[in-house]
Amino acid sequence: MVGASEDATRIGGRTVANLLRGRYAGPIFPINPKHETVQGLPAWPSIAEVPHAIDTVVIAVPENHVIPAVQEAAAKGARGAVIFSAGFNEAGPDGEARQRALDRISQESGLRIIGPNCLGVYNARNGAWLSFTTQFQETVDGPTIGLVSQSGGSAAHILKLAQQRGLTIGTFFTTGNEADVEFGEAMHALVADPATKVIVAYIEGIRNGASVLAALEAARRARKPVITLKVGRTQAGALAAASHTASLAGEDRVYDAIFRAYGVHRAGSTEELLDVAQAALHSTGNFPKGGRLGVATISGGMGAQIADAAADAGLTTPAIDMASQALLKALCPPGSPRNPVDITAQLSTDPDLLGQSLRIMAGSNAFDMLFAFFGVYADVPGLSDKIRESLVAFRADYPDIAVGLGIICGEQDAKRYAEGGFLVFEEPARAVKAMAALARFESCFGKTGTVDATTRVPRLADNRSFNEAEAKDVLRSVGIAIPEEKIARDPTEAASLAGTMKLPLALKIVSPDILHKSDVGGVRLGLTSPQDVLEAAGTMLEAVGRALPEAGIDGLLLSEMVPPGVELILGTRRDAAFGPIVMIGLGGVTTELFEDVAIRPAPVTLDEAHVMLRELKSYPLLDGYRGDAPSDVDSAARAIVAVAALAVANPRVETLEINPLRILPVGCGAIALDAVIELRSQGTLS
Amino acid sequence: MVGASEDATRIGGRTVANLLRGRYAGPIFPINPKHETVQGLPAWPSIAEVPHAIDTVVIAVPENHVIPAVQEAAAKGARGAVIFSAGFNEAGPDGEARQRALDRISQESGLRIIGPNCLGVYNARNGAWLSFTTQFQETVDGPTIGLVSQSGGSAAHILKLAQQRGLTIGTFFTTGNEADVEFGEAMHALVADPATKVIVAYIEGIRNGASVLAALEAARRARKPVITLKVGRTQAGALAAASHTASLAGEDRVYDAIFRAYGVHRAGSTEELLDVAQAALHSTGNFPKGGRLGVATISGGMGAQIADAAADAGLTTPAIDMASQALLKALCPPGSPRNPVDITAQLSTDPDLLGQSLRIMAGSNAFDMLFAFFGVYADVPGLSDKIRESLVAFRADYPDIAVGLGIICGEQDAKRYAEGGFLVFEEPARAVKAMAALARFESCFGKTGTVDATTRVPRLADNRSFNEAEAKDVLRSVGIAIPEEKIARDPTEAASLAGTMKLPLALKIVSPDILHKSDVGGVRLGLTSPQDVLEAAGTMLEAVGRALPEAGIDGLLLSEMVPPGVELILGTRRDAAFGPIVMIGLGGVTTELFEDVAIRPAPVTLDEAHVMLRELKSYPLLDGYRGDAPSDVDSAARAIVAVAALAVANPRVETLEINPLRILPVGCGAIALDAVIELRSQGTLS
Repeated sequence: MVGASEDATRIGGRTVANLLRGRYAGPIFPINPKHETVQGLPAWPSIAEVPHAIDTVVIAVPENHVIPAVQEAAAKGARGAVIFSAGFNEAGPDGEARQRALDRISQESGLRIIGPNCLGVYNARNGAWLSFTTQFQETVDGPTIGLVSQSGGSAAHILKLAQQRGLTIGTFFTTGNEADVEFGEAMHALVADPATKVIVAYIEGIRNGASVLAALEAARRARKPVITLKVGRTQAGALAAASHTASLAGEDRVYDAIFRAYGVHRAGSTEELLDVAQAALHSTGNFPKGGRLGVATISGGMGAQIADAAADAGLTTPAIDMASQALLKALCPPGSPRNPVDITAQLSTDPDLLGQSLRIMAGSNAFDMLFAFFGVYADVPGLSDKIRESLVAFRADYPDIAVGLGIICGEQDAKRYAEGGFLVFEEPARAVKAMAALARFESCFGKTGTVDATTRVPRLADNRSFNEAEAKDVLRSVGIAIPEEKIARDPTEAASLAGTMKLPLALKIVSPDILHKSDVGGVRLGLTSPQDVLEAAGTMLEAVGRALPEAGIDGLLLSEMVPPGVELILGTRRDAAFGPIVMIGLGGVTTELFEDVAIRPAPVTLDEAHVMLRELKSYPLLDGYRGDAPSDVDSAARAIVAVAALAVANPRVETLEINPLRILPVGCGAIALDAVIELRSQGTLS
Repeated sequence: MVGASEDATRIGGRTVANLLRGRYAGPIFPINPKHETVQGLPAWPSIAEVPHAIDTVVIAVPENHVIPAVQEAAAKGARGAVIFSAGFNEAGPDGEARQRALDRISQESGLRIIGPNCLGVYNARNGAWLSFTTQFQETVDGPTIGLVSQSGGSAAHILKLAQQRGLTIGTFFTTGNEADVEFGEAMHALVADPATKVIVAYIEGIRNGASVLAALEAARRARKPVITLKVGRTQAGALAAASHTASLAGEDRVYDAIFRAYGVHRAGSTEELLDVAQAALHSTGNFPKGGRLGVATISGGMGAQIADAAADAGLTTPAIDMASQALLKALCPPGSPRNPVDITAQLSTDPDLLGQSLRIMAGSNAFDMLFAFFGVYADVPGLSDKIRESLVAFRADYPDIAVGLGIICGEQDAKRYAEGGFLVFEEPARAVKAMAALARFESCFGKTGTVDATTRVPRLADNRSFNEAEAKDVLRSVGIAIPEEKIARDPTEAASLAGTMKLPLALKIVSPDILHKSDVGGVRLGLTSPQDVLEAAGTMLEAVGRALPEAGIDGLLLSEMVPPGVELILGTRRDAAFGPIVMIGLGGVTTELFEDVAIRPAPVTLDEAHVMLRELKSYPLLDGYRGDAPSDVDSAARAIVAVAALAVANPRVETLEINPLRILPVGCGAIALDAVIELRSQGTLS
């Protein structure tokens, strides 16, 4: 501990105190040239003089003393360094130079560095409190929450609020400026920790996207819910985040896309972060298999509120079957048995009413989760114990279904309910939001996540650019239709080519000398047979020859006439941190005005491409809007999969845009009417 | 008290106990034929037998005993009845008959009835606890919150949570089934109560909109913030509300429009309801005059979170001026002085840093409100007191600006901060949302609210319907432009009419015999002078005569050629509860798909019409999108004002729709291209 202090209110003192209080099993060497002992431990003037091998060095000295300490640590053969000190990338050019020096030492020596400018790391189970946090966890047992945060301040806030709720964060990493160990690596460590059941992550900006994506996929496969608070959702927030640590905020909606793809819950506040973490930690068994919520309530008014909140959270509150309704009505004649099930204030005279009602609701198989609101009754002496007994008995018979409670009661009672396998909340709207998150975790854990391998993906030639025709050829090579065009030298060839093309056709004169083709009879539309084409071509040559006898004629262009359809924009672009990203949106101004786009990291599965399309607010346009024929959504989805795969296979493709991609009625496909592919300049390839 | 009980855990006993405990000054007469005394008071077998005059009768007996009791109360000359009993409109045909009987008694006798199916009313100041609530307020002083709720259960929940926060609800009304006293009347009583500073309202559905609108306007003029929880935001919630009390939910977005118009904050949960009520109650002086938020924080990460939350809430976090930045930087060199102002963990060693920073920020006049986050430091012994002293000293010098605190501390400390004029919150996102609500209250209190009296509003003839031309004439009569069209008998008259019209013009042949006018030369566009028109008309008659010599010619139609513009939909319709409603939206499918409409109760002021237009997500299309000329937004706003006034002046207008209303570039006006006016059938007029 470099900068170890006698004073436990100071950073270098608090860490020693934490290590002692946490009963860390290994030897602790305070480094302090001015003291013989620190907090009862023998102190040493420098790392070099410590007469033992050292595993990890913790550094809490002013920034200009940090580099020498890290050099000493490397020389001593330490494996890790945790640097609390600020004054690096966040502090102008001098600081940046210092951080580069840290990076260099780490690269050369293999010393792994956490920080600088961080609150450190801890593992409360083995007492390794390499942090000056004041939020000490006295006892840690059972599954716990793991925390990884790029901000020490936000981590401290999360730790404090978690402790207030009785939630234990067993392990945390704060990565600060990330001179060496980055966010994704820290998150991976939490995924690998068997005691960590739930991961909460505070993010300002990711540099190494690949390692984060790998960690998120590992968490998904390990069925560990990840809940994140990513700042910079808004322009104001992004600006504030950029002026904070050394993070480059990046485009926020790319994060949204990634969180969606990996089933990460993105919270809007610390409170919501912990609501969902709490629900995930306290869940028994599996998370809800779907989004159907059954509500039992002592107040119809609260039932309506809960139904609103459920809809906001993406849950449904379907009616229970008529037989169950009859049972519920018999149980509570003045109540409403549909869903929300209103058991009325009668619960105050019949404390078994709620447990009985929940039995009927759970038994009906109409719901993936249940929520019971009895608010103040949970705090009425005499009544509350009886209600709880009834609920515990119900729970014993139905242990698998997630059950949330909306109650107002003391800490002890809340704890007893939590231990009984209930998710306890005071505000139903927050409860319902957290329960919806659990269902989304489950849905994402269940995804197979394999990308359709049948998509043909060519590697594009590396040393050239693409014009429109070439771009369209590339699309055709991955199975995306483009309008067919052929050039004939004369009417006979035009007719014979027409026989090989999709009718009807348009015919146009090809001439560098004719500006307004239609004025001279040089355009004919809607030709429905080769015979039509033969006659039209003859008439056209004649008319053009009469009108402009001097014009040079290069041939006759036959084009497929693309039927009307819904026009989308489909594209990919390469994100600096996360690599290729695929996006789909409605064409026209709406994409921008209404931000109606769906985005994912590439590649995507066909299922995911369908999910993307259904995410669009404009999806109804594809689904038979106002009596129109439904569009060929499957072709649109296949096009998404294809361009995503193309971008993955060809790292030089900087952006690809199909605008518009016209989606024809079901069975008729999708056609790219225009396409642009931009390559990264050769020079930028490493 | 009809149904008075010895047992204070029962409804009829709890009310007597509340009255006694509240030290109600008047005489209390328990009515109970089976007892001589009730809770120490002499009891009477019936109302008739009470040997005194009675002011109010409270009724807590089964539904079939209610009507006789109310009849007795009316006979006795009582002025009011509060009916707790359920079993009325919410309980099928028998219940509806009972409620009609109550209504009749009230109408005939003048007895005012609260309920049935409610939690009653109370005024904690005079001890009139006409409610069986268990949330008793021991002491009530200073300004308090007033509550009006259509649901007893939701009211109980709100009361309990308010009490937990130390917020006093001094008066409440629960209106239940509203057999007589309706929501608006109850709210009016709260507006009139001088001790009520803030009003919270739980709404399921309003029958008498006019009285609610009047109460909201009275609250606005009295500068009393109204915060509402209106259920039925979603389809699921509306369904649940409809199956609860006897309310007809109505279209939810009409409520949104009304809340917006009267500056009512619509909360999404009880928690948010009380967050805003708390902030409003604890505010000293005026509410913030604008939406510019200055943030001081000990953590850059939290600063970014707060900036995100501020943007979500509609606040801005502008940078402070450079001189103030220099002062802040000098105060805290490692910090970030822009805004959010990051004073870093240095506050832990320099407890005066926050107070000093806030002084600079308040002095800069860059902000309408301030928010300081120091989270856990508020709970660190030794440190927290010093920080508070510094803040209190700052507050003494800057008493007028609203200051929110994001802190984690014990109840006592929080109370001390609140008494010091700070708005105290644990979760910054919730704090910022509540502070934004205060700014919106202020902005709405400041509105003049008078409708432009210069709008000419004709009373439409009452006994006829309108065809398109007549509808357009109506629009023209209120100053909305329509495309000009004139019919000429011959080319000479056409030329002369053209001299009186806006050029360019379109010319069309008028003939019942010609289907495809352009095929026979019967259409000419873009005529730019009377001479042009003369020649074109001559040519047209000649061409048509040659092509279809038998066709009858009725004349030549001259039409103004409306230039391109942005097309909107503008309309009014009559809401069953709230009367005429005006709405504006972008034309085409987007209005429906993206729900991009702005709605207000009619009439609206020109200012409000502009606010409506700016509310549209598609507003950028009107504001010079992608280099286009800006549209004549003022003409669009005037059209909104005009149709709203028209709908107000003509109650028989059921719906009016202009689709499209084409908005031309600035200075060129707006033109109604098509219009429909539908009248209510005569029979429905009362």
